[in-house]
Amino acid sequence: MPDMDLEARIRSVFDRQQMLKTLDARLIKVSAGEVQIEMPFQRELTQQHGFIHAGAITTLIDNACGYAAYTVIPPQGSILTIEFKVNFIAPAKGEKFIAVGRAIKSGRTLTICSGEAFAIERGESKLVALMQATMMNLDK
Amino acid sequence: MPDMDLEARIRSVFDRQQMLKTLDARLIKVSAGEVQIEMPFQRELTQQHGFIHAGAITTLIDNACGYAAYTVIPPQGSILTIEFKVNFIAPAKGEKFIAVGRAIKSGRTLTICSGEAFAIERGESKLVALMQATMMNLDK
Amino acid sequence: MPDMDLEARIRSVFDRQQMLKTLDARLIKVSAGEVQIEMPFQRELTQQHGFIHAGAITTLIDNACGYAAYTVIPPQGSILTIEFKVNFIAPAKGEKFIAVGRAIKSGRTLTICSGEAFAIERGESKLVALMQATMMNLDK
Amino acid sequence: MPDMDLEARIRSVFDRQQMLKTLDARLIKVSAGEVQIEMPFQRELTQQHGFIHAGAITTLIDNACGYAAYTVIPPQGSILTIEFKVNFIAPAKGEKFIAVGRAIKSGRTLTICSGEAFAIERGESKLVALMQATMMNLDK
Repeated sequence: MPDMDLEARIRSVFDRQQMLKTLDARLIKVSAGEVQIEMPFQRELTQQHGFIHAGAITTLIDNACGYAAYTVIPPQGSILTIEFKVNFIAPAKGEKFIAVGRAIKSGRTLTICSGEAFAIERGESKLVALMQATMMNLDK
Repeated sequence: MPDMDLEARIRSVFDRQQMLKTLDARLIKVSAGEVQIEMPFQRELTQQHGFIHAGAITTLIDNACGYAAYTVIPPQGSILTIEFKVNFIAPAKGEKFIAVGRAIKSGRTLTICSGEAFAIERGESKLVALMQATMMNLDK
Repeated sequence: MPDMDLEARIRSVFDRQQMLKTLDARLIKVSAGEVQIEMPFQRELTQQHGFIHAGAITTLIDNACGYAAYTVIPPQGSILTIEFKVNFIAPAKGEKFIAVGRAIKSGRTLTICSGEAFAIERGESKLVALMQATMMNLDK
Repeated sequence: MPDMDLEARIRSVFDRQQMLKTLDARLIKVSAGEVQIEMPFQRELTQQHGFIHAGAITTLIDNACGYAAYTVIPPQGSILTIEFKVNFIAPAKGEKFIAVGRAIKSGRTLTICSGEAFAIERGESKLVALMQATMMNLDK
């Protein structure tokens, strides 16, 4: 049975992020330790070759990782991105993009996350970026 | 005397990036090895606390670093972001934001860059993020 | 059937690395896309609390990643570490340490790798560090 | 006037790190926000081409950064490396190597550092690696 409280809490933070509206992003999966976020192709987010900009892909994965961290900390806590590192592996070319964030290890102060972004084109999924991130667990 | 050709080339790539229009970003400095980009505060780019989203700040610094790399490679070349790592040091709170990108070392295939983002609030400038990036030099 | 040529090539580079002798490291697994390296606890590699130094753990994972990259490039090629990022997740406390390196994606010029280090203590294995690395594929 | 207490505290931690003895490293500068560490070339630390291994260079910079963080936190505190990212810019070829660590920003919980390693060969100094690191400030 999905933890509706968890999902509701995450959705409430998600909905207050204007940047995610700008990306037209939506939560597609919330489970303990893993979150998935999807966004469609949008011309407004492209770079000079017409693919999605590395910065938009990064924003998507950062959020998937941040929300994955939310799923493993106490309910009253919140999450702050301390730092991340991203490798861009293939051009972000597709109709939509899915970021998967996973909490690898959560301690008292920090949660280490791993994230991926996939481009979906004609039903095929391709890895386009890989992230390793450090999140801070705040008490409120 | 500024290298107008260099600036014109960079401006031409800059203008083809829709993502930079979405950020309302503009080039404010182009010199050999250093580029500065500025963007105003925009509600559309905020996170849940009303500050600029880490992803938007990252996009700004990534571009400053990428264009800094452009300034140190042959004129016909172009630049691709291979990877970057960003530390978020303070909340991106301010009226405008300036990213500074510097090419630290450029080889045949790669250019290593260092970048910073500053928030400007009531005339005060504050470091909000620090990037270290690897760019690939493409022949065309 | 294991590719003995591949393993022999990797072992030959491994044996020429004095740093790996200093770590008393040995190859324990070589397969297409994955390499494992083991090292025992050694007082010479400790930090001030008596645990293995982050630098020694990093060296171990860097090598596991580099050799994993070797397994996916043409036989005459060689590998150079361009950059890596490591998170230290738990103290490196144990009798021995195993690094696992995996090639995630290999292109013409670069191979992106992911690596982990585990501490083994009384038969229990614990994740102590996580790496994301960029390797360059050289022609010879 | 140098802060002898600060230097003495740092030297005391330094001397308890066996790994630094293995590198034959020594503190050459301690000031508020900046530490320098030097090590000679040693065959025991080389990779297959006879240059110093990326892992040994990383260890040196990590320590310079960690001690730089020590210089900006309260006297009773200690420092733990959370994560770092290193770019390897040129082969570590030389008679000796100097790592410079700088504390860029120190907050209540974290200190962000920037580090460089230089190879010294026939009196010439060359940048060989660049680090960006996150350190945790512990109360004791």
